[in-house]
Amino acid sequence: MIADLPDRLFSPPQWSRLRELADLGDERVLTDFTSPASLDRLAEVEVLITGWGSPAVDEAALAAAPRLRAVLHAAGSVKGHLSPACWERGVQISTAAQANAQPVAEYTLAMILLTLKGVPASTAHLRERRDRVDVLRTFPRIGNHQRRVGLVGASRIGRLVAEALRPFSLDVAIADPYLGEAEAAELGATLLPLEELLRESDLVSLHAPAIAETRHMLDADRLALLRDGAILINTARGALVDHEALTPELVSGRIDAILDVTEPEPLPADSPLWDLDNVWLTPHIAGAQGTELHRLADVVLDELARFDAGEPLGHPVHAGELGRIA
Amino acid sequence: MIADLPDRLFSPPQWSRLRELADLGDERVLTDFTSPASLDRLAEVEVLITGWGSPAVDEAALAAAPRLRAVLHAAGSVKGHLSPACWERGVQISTAAQANAQPVAEYTLAMILLTLKGVPASTAHLRERRDRVDVLRTFPRIGNHQRRVGLVGASRIGRLVAEALRPFSLDVAIADPYLGEAEAAELGATLLPLEELLRESDLVSLHAPAIAETRHMLDADRLALLRDGAILINTARGALVDHEALTPELVSGRIDAILDVTEPEPLPADSPLWDLDNVWLTPHIAGAQGTELHRLADVVLDELARFDAGEPLGHPVHAGELGRIA
Repeated sequence: MIADLPDRLFSPPQWSRLRELADLGDERVLTDFTSPASLDRLAEVEVLITGWGSPAVDEAALAAAPRLRAVLHAAGSVKGHLSPACWERGVQISTAAQANAQPVAEYTLAMILLTLKGVPASTAHLRERRDRVDVLRTFPRIGNHQRRVGLVGASRIGRLVAEALRPFSLDVAIADPYLGEAEAAELGATLLPLEELLRESDLVSLHAPAIAETRHMLDADRLALLRDGAILINTARGALVDHEALTPELVSGRIDAILDVTEPEPLPADSPLWDLDNVWLTPHIAGAQGTELHRLADVVLDELARFDAGEPLGHPVHAGELGRIA
Repeated sequence: MIADLPDRLFSPPQWSRLRELADLGDERVLTDFTSPASLDRLAEVEVLITGWGSPAVDEAALAAAPRLRAVLHAAGSVKGHLSPACWERGVQISTAAQANAQPVAEYTLAMILLTLKGVPASTAHLRERRDRVDVLRTFPRIGNHQRRVGLVGASRIGRLVAEALRPFSLDVAIADPYLGEAEAAELGATLLPLEELLRESDLVSLHAPAIAETRHMLDADRLALLRDGAILINTARGALVDHEALTPELVSGRIDAILDVTEPEPLPADSPLWDLDNVWLTPHIAGAQGTELHRLADVVLDELARFDAGEPLGHPVHAGELGRIA
């Protein structure tokens, strides 16, 4: 992984636990699998802890790591760096995606509560006026009560967002081709077809994986289904939304958006979206950051303890599910 | 109350329930208690439903309302418009403060999650760069994990915020001269003296009432106790903070603030706070707005039903507590 990432992932007590559970050798962080020093180390390792910036665990790396039995990923998706050969060779794979999902759900919850409340719009209005704002009459439709939130995708994150919304007096709808009505009801949500969800929600938040079937799932036709004044939140991947179709909807002010991810990412410096009061761009920050990285480390440490005890991993990634997860 | 407020408070089904519970006469909204028409109406009323902009229920108004037995306030504080004479005459008083507290707690929760996550700072940084942000290294201390939130005041709102923070992995401390350790523990919080709370919190949120004893409770000395980089949230009243002392702390960038209320309010047009990236000003919006007004109406309708049934009110305000509530 990135050379300075381990010290950000592991707090001092977590380092102690790591050293108890594993023989870390010289504690050098591998940032490639090709240098002689890396190849020497690979020859010995039973477990790889991977993270952002990890080199690809491909056939060459696997061939250099004959004793490798597990890859514990201290982040979300393993599809970028683990080749199918890992599963074919029977290496156990684990992900900290659940711990990375938690901060995304928290970010989403906070953005839902603030945007339905009209905070971005009223902030901009106040900044412009520098005087008392008649909130009652200027923003009569805001509020976190009796309004509908539509979640696209009952992914790990989508489910966490639905759970996080339970204490609030909002109607939650969810669209997912793999979800049943009963399962949606267990999440406190109503299952809706995507088009109906887009038409009937005050706010739509995307939690689908970026796979071939979901590319530009929000295209011009579907974006047009959104209500005037609807809010779109994207913390998933830019590729889910056709940004050529999205841009005019935002420039006209017909809808608002909170975009933590975009296509391309970052947006071109001359994109009109940078200067719009109804668009809030954040720098792909919703996932684990800062102190939240310690949650990823906790997952890895727990997995290492299970591996050490010969127990099954708690967060395995199976080859069969790769086609429909992020 | 304000003439157009009832239609914002009561949704059509709530109007129907109101008409079932009460004889509203000609349904005219009283905006004064002095005109002949208002005096005629006052002569008959048993219950007043008051709200924002309500004229004072003083001795003259009480003298004109010999049959008055209850005032149901469709908002928070009753201290602005109800004179002590109301209690002296034995009129029952009720407040929708609990329903008004809920949106304030929601706003506060959302702001806590976004500011500890570094969203305002990283938004500003991204907007300036218009290019990829190295969040890992630029914002290493952010995150909603293992950080301390200090709540000043175990008021209705302070308690709701503590409850709302329970599902998150944050340490919650609370300072309140009327709160015991066991009661704080029941809220999932640690009781701390105010000075210690200010010194040891990453974020401090104010939920104390504006009374003589709390005026400028955050003065220069106490503001100086805040950690570098600490975040101050004020959704209570501007008078709690000495803004002459606060301003240089914000201008220097030593601390950040989310201010829904200020002193004066609004701030002077030439205040330096308008232009700071580390200050987020919202237009006194945290309380019930838009659809949230229907929650206030629900409280009033439930109280009216209790009154009608001869039951005690659910949210009474007693004369004895006026000195220490908002």
